[in-house]
Order: sequence, then structure tokens, then C-alpha cells
Amino acid sequence: MSRSILMLPGDGIGPEIVAEAEKVLHKINEKFGLELHFQSALVGGAAIDETDTPLPDETLEKARKADAILLGAVGGPQWDSRPMASRPEKGLLGLRSNLELFANLRPAILYPQLASASSLKPEVVSGLDIMIVRELTGGIYFGQPRGVRELESGERQGYNTYAYTESEIRRIGRVAFEAAQQRSKKLCSVDKANVLEVTVLWREIMEDLRREYPDVELSHMYVDNAAMQLVRAPKQFDVIVTGNMFGDILSDEAAMLTGSIGMLPSASLNSEKQGMYEPCHGSAPDIAGKGIANPLATILSAAMMLRYSLGEEKAAEAIEAAVSKVLDQGLRTADIMSADGRKVSTREMGDAVLAAL
Amino acid sequence: MSRSILMLPGDGIGPEIVAEAEKVLHKINEKFGLELHFQSALVGGAAIDETDTPLPDETLEKARKADAILLGAVGGPQWDSRPMASRPEKGLLGLRSNLELFANLRPAILYPQLASASSLKPEVVSGLDIMIVRELTGGIYFGQPRGVRELESGERQGYNTYAYTESEIRRIGRVAFEAAQQRSKKLCSVDKANVLEVTVLWREIMEDLRREYPDVELSHMYVDNAAMQLVRAPKQFDVIVTGNMFGDILSDEAAMLTGSIGMLPSASLNSEKQGMYEPCHGSAPDIAGKGIANPLATILSAAMMLRYSLGEEKAAEAIEAAVSKVLDQGLRTADIMSADGRKVSTREMGDAVLAAL
Ligand SMILES: CC(C)[C@H](C(=O)O)[C@@H](O)C(=O)O
Ligand SMILES: CC(C)[C@H](C(=O)O)[C@@H](O)C(=O)O
Repeated sequence: MSRSILMLPGDGIGPEIVAEAEKVLHKINEKFGLELHFQSALVGGAAIDETDTPLPDETLEKARKADAILLGAVGGPQWDSRPMASRPEKGLLGLRSNLELFANLRPAILYPQLASASSLKPEVVSGLDIMIVRELTGGIYFGQPRGVRELESGERQGYNTYAYTESEIRRIGRVAFEAAQQRSKKLCSVDKANVLEVTVLWREIMEDLRREYPDVELSHMYVDNAAMQLVRAPKQFDVIVTGNMFGDILSDEAAMLTGSIGMLPSASLNSEKQGMYEPCHGSAPDIAGKGIANPLATILSAAMMLRYSLGEEKAAEAIEAAVSKVLDQGLRTADIMSADGRKVSTREMGDAVLAAL
Repeated sequence: MSRSILMLPGDGIGPEIVAEAEKVLHKINEKFGLELHFQSALVGGAAIDETDTPLPDETLEKARKADAILLGAVGGPQWDSRPMASRPEKGLLGLRSNLELFANLRPAILYPQLASASSLKPEVVSGLDIMIVRELTGGIYFGQPRGVRELESGERQGYNTYAYTESEIRRIGRVAFEAAQQRSKKLCSVDKANVLEVTVLWREIMEDLRREYPDVELSHMYVDNAAMQLVRAPKQFDVIVTGNMFGDILSDEAAMLTGSIGMLPSASLNSEKQGMYEPCHGSAPDIAGKGIANPLATILSAAMMLRYSLGEEKAAEAIEAAVSKVLDQGLRTADIMSADGRKVSTREMGDAVLAAL
């Protein structure tokens, strides 16, 4: 069964790290006889520079047809002064909404080999393994109306709308309950139901779903408390489910607890399990082109792609085992370098994963 | 010059901790000849139980007339199932909006005596001293329209509005720039200007203000990155300014970096410097009535009150010095207890501060 993968290198370090992940996927393709076919396209700043739009029609067309997408990163200072509608980020947001990739899975895992990189005390984070399920195509990111208007007084007011329908909440809730079922059966839903009506509905629907998943223990937490508890005692969490904006904030906070955000992959899925996969870190323009970026988050994103969109669990595990092996060997890119590590370049790290496969 | 202070004990541990702060204020009143006069009133769950509303007219009337307000905390499980409009939190939110207490100052300070309480590594947090300036009467907390509506499809949609006018942004911006001027002259404004139009306006107005405060170094950071940087390297920040919702989340995260949220006070001020002062922690219903709560955040809130609303800097410093002294003596309530500390009750801690004055 032939499957097509779309590579979207994007901006900054994107092209360098995607190149390494592509090498790994080619090897896996051969080794497991997967019949993967690769295409690539422009998105973000790279697309703006060539075509004057962050999400060219051709890219969107290819994305719709692909079984899965591997994205590097988008954005950089040279595009920061553009109006919001034509910034690199719109390429990313446009893909998410056009493909209805509503379910964003962001694991925050502390690799035992990298435990010392965390800014938290070892006993607080050792063994950390949280899955954040973030709603990705609704909430305040996409709510209408939005904009800047002039009031009668003559002064301007900026405004956005934070909205969720029952069905939007229900479908992300199901993804989260199912993720919890496959893990330790504990789900924490994060909202601000003491202040925001939209999250009162959120909480109500999560409560509704509880009945369909009696084996999962559901709890609720206010977002301010969740931000606090992630710092105080992150291991109290297993799966966290929340809306788009709170998920953006909490997933980055959770990722940073590990101290090695260069290691963390993510998946964004729609209801057909078509997905876009990308590292949690950004485009890191300051180190772009230097060959020192960490390709492992992107390589691990390729593993997530094999697992979630292509149903190739064995191939996914092979990549994950290879990554673990290179870490055991002491290989480290600059961002995860430690006293006893051996510093390697982006390409050397990719080659080491290939060799370990 | 006689000044009136309104005490609002509220719920949970509120009455216990406010009682200790009141003792301290009485002593300060005498010692410094301040002519402070004290009243008290009901708010939150305590007010619901007596009068069926979280913010009785009488309380609001007294609050308007007071020069400053000292609040314990509001909320508890027994009122959690009430509709949003009549929950204890509405008492707090009603005070904030009716008195236009738009400027919320939340310091996150690591007391050297309590350094080991933090879940972060000592080198990451030692000497931490951040001031978060949170806008408190606008943004999504108060934006209209809001509610739950039925769509044509028959399903419900919850919605809230995140809005700020230029003048709302400008006045909180000024408070933050002025705070930065009195500290290390570094201000970081947190927004999500790559996605939310309302925060594009926020960023523009902050940039405008830069010209009025040329001695302050202004930077901008996206909220997801800020949540991450607070964990990675919190000491990069001095003053942070942000909107109501982001401020709620980030100030709690920052507070927890210290590991001792039982120590952190807060101030909420309007443009006449009238203010409401309260500990950053909540009503802690699980330990209410046990006499073990930490009164120091409330006592330190009283010190902030003397400083910001009453202009009594010397009296404020006396309280802060007394608190530092009892910590030096090794006195610890349960929440900040450590191996070499001496455990004391709420009242014993209050008495020790009195003695140290
Ligand atoms: C680049 C930005 C629009 C994006 C978001 O806010 O969703 C990023 O922060 C992320 O989390 O993927
Ligand atoms: C109790 C709640 C309404 C309040 C808020 O969200 O502002 C609290 O979390 C705070 O930060 O003071």
C-alpha cells in the first residue's frame, strides 16, 4: 500500500532538521518495505519569499492529498513586521484549519540520559511523561469576530473571540479520553470555569464524556493552578486536555520542564488520522544554517507519524529505539550538551540515528 | 490624617490569616501613630451564606469609602456548583471592577531563608525577584458579549470576548514602566501578537509608551515562550506586564517558582492609588479552621498596603523586616516547613511577627 508524505521544511533551522528526518524515513522505508513516497512544498517565510503568500495553493493541495505531513518550523525576524494575515504563522494556522487538524498531541518526556538538563530538581522531574492534548482548530485562535475597531470615543479597541461548540469540545475530549485509556487512565481537563462561560460548557461536555469512559479518572483544574502544579509537582499529571490557547501555554511550559525541548515531537491529527508532525521547538533563526540544530525532535516526529497516521508501530519503535541508542552513546547536539557528552552536528546526529537503525 | 481600612476575611483560611494581619496592623498603627481605623465586611462565600449574594451592597459601599482593603481569600467547594453569576469569585471580580482596580502587582520573590522549598535548582532561582504587573479590570475576564448560545444547528456554543481599548492598555503600561523605573529598568511585555489582534494593539501601545520612558529597556515576548522562559531561566526577567488572563496564568507560575506561595502578597490599585491587598494563595478549604495556615502573605500584603495606598514606607519596611526576622529565627508554618525549621501555628507566626516589630 503506497502512502505519500509531504515534507515542509519551512524556515530557520527547518530545512536542516527536516533533511535529517528525511534520511531516517528513507532508511525506514527500505527496511520495513513501507512504500512511502515523498514530496516537498513551501510554507511560511520560505513561501512568502517565493510566492508572496505563507500558504500557496499548491502547498495546500499537496497537503490535502498527502497521508501525512512532516513540518520543520516557520517564522523569523525578517517577516515579523508583516501584517498578521500574511505572516509565516498563517501558513501553519492555515494548514491546521484547512485540514481540520483539531487534535494536537504534545508529549513532555524526560529522557533519563538528559535528566540533568532540566532546571528542576531531579526528584521533581525524573521519569516525567505527560501527554498534553490541545484543541488546535478552534478557541480564540480562530474565533470570529476579531480585529481592531474604532469606538465612538475615537479610540481603538482590539478584540478576539474565544468560542467552542459542543461538538468541537466533544471530539477533542474523545481523543483525550482514548489517550488516557492507553496510558495510566488519568485525565485532567484544564479550564477557567470560574470566570469564562466558554469553559463552563467545556467542563460540562467533559463531564458528559466521563460516562462513556468509566475506566478513566477525570479531574478538572483551573488553568492558573495547572500552570502552578506543573512547576510544583508535574508527575501528578498523565494526560492533560485543554483548549487551543491554554494548550499553547501549558504545553510549552511542560516541554520546558524537561530542559530539552530539542527532543520533543508533536502530532496534529484530524478525524481521518491524517496528520501533520512537527518538533515542539521553533525555527531558531539565531542558529539557522550553522549545522548545529538538534534534529531529534523532528526525527521523533517522524516516528509519531509512522505510529498515528500510517499505523506502522514497529517502524515507529525502531526510530525511537535508535534515538535512545545515540543518546546512550553520549552523542549530543549543542542544545543538550553536558560535561560527559560528545558534541555532534545536526548531520552527525542524523547519521548516528541512521547507523543505529 | 485618619485613614480607614476595610478588612474582608472571606472564606476558608481567610478569617484566620486576616486576624493575624490585623494584629500586626494594630501594632504598627500605635507604633507609627498612623490613625488607621478598621472596619470589616462580608464577601465571597461568607457573604453568600449570610445575604445570598457574593458582594452585598453594604460591602461595596464600605469598600468605596475605604482608603484601602485587606482581603483574605474567597471560594470553596460548597459554593462550586452555583451558577457563575452568584459564585464567591464574583465578589472578588465585582470589587475589582467596581473600584476600577486595574493594576495588579504580583511580586515573585524567593526568600533566601526558604530557597530549598523551590522545585527548581538553587542556581536557577536563588535571588529571584520578579514583579508581574497584570491588567485586572479588562481583557477576557470582563469582555462582552459572553455566554452560551444555541446555534441554528441546535448545538450550544460557549463564547467570551477578549478586548482592550488603547486607554486601558496605556494606563497599565504606565504603571509597568514606572515600576520598571524604580527597579532595574527592564520591562518585558507579554502578548500573543502573532495570533491575536487584541494583542497586536497591546504591543503597539507598549511601543508608543517606550518614548515616554527612554530609560526603560522594553522587550516583547509571546506568552507561550514566557511560560517556558519562566521555567528555564526566570532571573532573566525583572518587570513583566501583561493582560488579565495571561497575567493570571503567568503570575501563578512565577509564584510557584519560589516554592512558597504562602509568602507572596499582591496589590490591586486604581488610579487614585486606592487598593485592595491580598495574598496570592487561595482560600485553601482543606486546611481551613485548623490554625496551620501561613499568615505571612497576608501580613506582607498589609505591608504593601502601607507602601502603595497609605504612603507609609517606613511602616511597610518595618513589617517586612519583622517577617524576615521570624524566618531567620527558623519559625515555619507547615507549608514552608523544612528539616531545620521550628513548626508554628498561624497564631504563633502572627505573634512572632508582632514580637519582632
Ligand atoms: C507559531 C504559533 C502560531 C504556534 C501557536 O501558537 O499555535 C506555536 O506557538 C505552536 O504552539 O505551534
Ligand atoms: C479567583 C479567581 C477569579 C482569580 C482570578 O482568576 O483572577 C484568582 O485566580 C486570582 O488570580 O486572583
